[in-house]
Amino acid sequence: MAVYTPVSDDELEAFLAAYDIGEVTSFSGIAEGVENSNFLVRTTEGTFILTLYEKRVNPDELPFFIGLMDHLARKGLSVPRPVPARDGETLRNLNDRPAAIVSFVNGVWHRRIQPAYCRSLGANMAEMHAAGLDFALTRRNNLSVGGWRPLLESCALPENPIYHGLHNELNQELLFLEANWPSHLPSGTIHADLFPDNVFFLKEQVSGFIDFYFACTDILVYDLAICLNAWCFEVDGGFNITKAQNLVTGYHGVRPCSVAEREALPILARGAALRFLLTRLYDWMNTPADALVKPKDPMEYLAKLRFHRGVASPSAYGL
Amino acid sequence: MAVYTPVSDDELEAFLAAYDIGEVTSFSGIAEGVENSNFLVRTTEGTFILTLYEKRVNPDELPFFIGLMDHLARKGLSVPRPVPARDGETLRNLNDRPAAIVSFVNGVWHRRIQPAYCRSLGANMAEMHAAGLDFALTRRNNLSVGGWRPLLESCALPENPIYHGLHNELNQELLFLEANWPSHLPSGTIHADLFPDNVFFLKEQVSGFIDFYFACTDILVYDLAICLNAWCFEVDGGFNITKAQNLVTGYHGVRPCSVAEREALPILARGAALRFLLTRLYDWMNTPADALVKPKDPMEYLAKLRFHRGVASPSAYGL
Repeated sequence: MAVYTPVSDDELEAFLAAYDIGEVTSFSGIAEGVENSNFLVRTTEGTFILTLYEKRVNPDELPFFIGLMDHLARKGLSVPRPVPARDGETLRNLNDRPAAIVSFVNGVWHRRIQPAYCRSLGANMAEMHAAGLDFALTRRNNLSVGGWRPLLESCALPENPIYHGLHNELNQELLFLEANWPSHLPSGTIHADLFPDNVFFLKEQVSGFIDFYFACTDILVYDLAICLNAWCFEVDGGFNITKAQNLVTGYHGVRPCSVAEREALPILARGAALRFLLTRLYDWMNTPADALVKPKDPMEYLAKLRFHRGVASPSAYGL
Repeated sequence: MAVYTPVSDDELEAFLAAYDIGEVTSFSGIAEGVENSNFLVRTTEGTFILTLYEKRVNPDELPFFIGLMDHLARKGLSVPRPVPARDGETLRNLNDRPAAIVSFVNGVWHRRIQPAYCRSLGANMAEMHAAGLDFALTRRNNLSVGGWRPLLESCALPENPIYHGLHNELNQELLFLEANWPSHLPSGTIHADLFPDNVFFLKEQVSGFIDFYFACTDILVYDLAICLNAWCFEVDGGFNITKAQNLVTGYHGVRPCSVAEREALPILARGAALRFLLTRLYDWMNTPADALVKPKDPMEYLAKLRFHRGVASPSAYGL
């Protein structure tokens, strides 16, 4: 559930008094998302999302996230557009949390992925990358190769003999990635968390991207590698080459990839698999057994990692 | 949180294919309510709520609840209007749950109650009572006087010495109410759960009633007695006679109460206090200490019960 901090009608009214967005006609908490508190606010002028940023978001990084959404929205991308208060500020305070009002993005997220969705995803991601190239702010990706060893160590796998095999495998993988991670590929502003629940569709076409709170400055096609993992495996674990082909072709049609970028996809996909494996593993090791929210299965990403390790060239992705 | 049964985009699409309500443009779970799973569905034709009825609702009673909302909406009351599928059915099945689509009701619910809200509440409740008089179906109120003794017994208070005082007090109260509960007051269809979170407002005027899943056939002014408890006490426990006066006057202006109805308000208010005290007590005794949802404090209603027990005439409510 995604309402950690309740907001009363009085608090909402006092908060919205600073904005020119009409009178509230409806207000309800949204049961999606896991990081922040989100509310749907309907007014006489339109529909908006109110987000209260909870403790997992670093307040110092909010100007980057808010600024990026504003930058992309101004370029015509369908992303939540931060709505400024009358004083021009888009980031304010509500119930002791940083808070922002953003525009509502139409669409639904698909659970069962069709190849056509992947094609539209690729094309829209490439447009977002192009639009983000002249965004002035930067944010280091603290969940890229430099952040993985501390993450692996914080999982403390060696303390338990049953995890020794897993630890050795991940350690070997990490040594390989640290030694071979590409350093000269085009970089820019990436979303870095384009899982299906962050991509809205109307029919088969992407209608918007949401949840920019992992966005950062990194290798552009690393976003593509994340999506190879998040969109192109079937529930039974099998890799769907048609979806991968659609994804990369859709991207390439809007922002042509260099040979170097395509050749790097297998190692980037290994890295992306390890990144989500490690954060899930960390959550897994640090979630009490009786917690309400079941952490996501890290082993799904171990299987993906092993698949990419067996890939010799991007032809395995249908390229 | 209020999404117990997830619904995917595919499941939603298959379900909505039976309706003429346009194409889905947005779909999200609502983090309010505690009994059922609720989703906000926006389509090219409008905004709707999809409800999946969970185990606390008896499926046999759904035709009463759905029929009542339909009846009231047809009479112009602002309540969720059940939307029939193309085959005319308003009650269907989704993910093994009974499910219905209803219209969206504008408004916000107020946490801090002003006397003016109580006046509008009274007037709108009276309109609902008048509109419900010719509703063809009936449903016995199983949480009225006949249901309280089994409820008290199921709390098993005598088993624990620390609850002996409470048990005696409630037992005495129950004996009094069983012997004196009014039997000849005008009866009809009541909402029976008009707490602030079930009453939407635009500014100071009621814009709609929601959540009809305790509605039943009972003494009309018992609804008023429930609201005396739910709307007219301050956070510090004090009774606010101005709010009570506004509530009853608002009601009386639309549906004049007989002397007998007014005279019965103190005993009905005692009964209403005992009803919520007992259901909260039952939840309190039957919720594991580490449960996510903290049960509501039953003792709040013991204080209210004691207040009404000290009331000699409806003049204590400002009448």
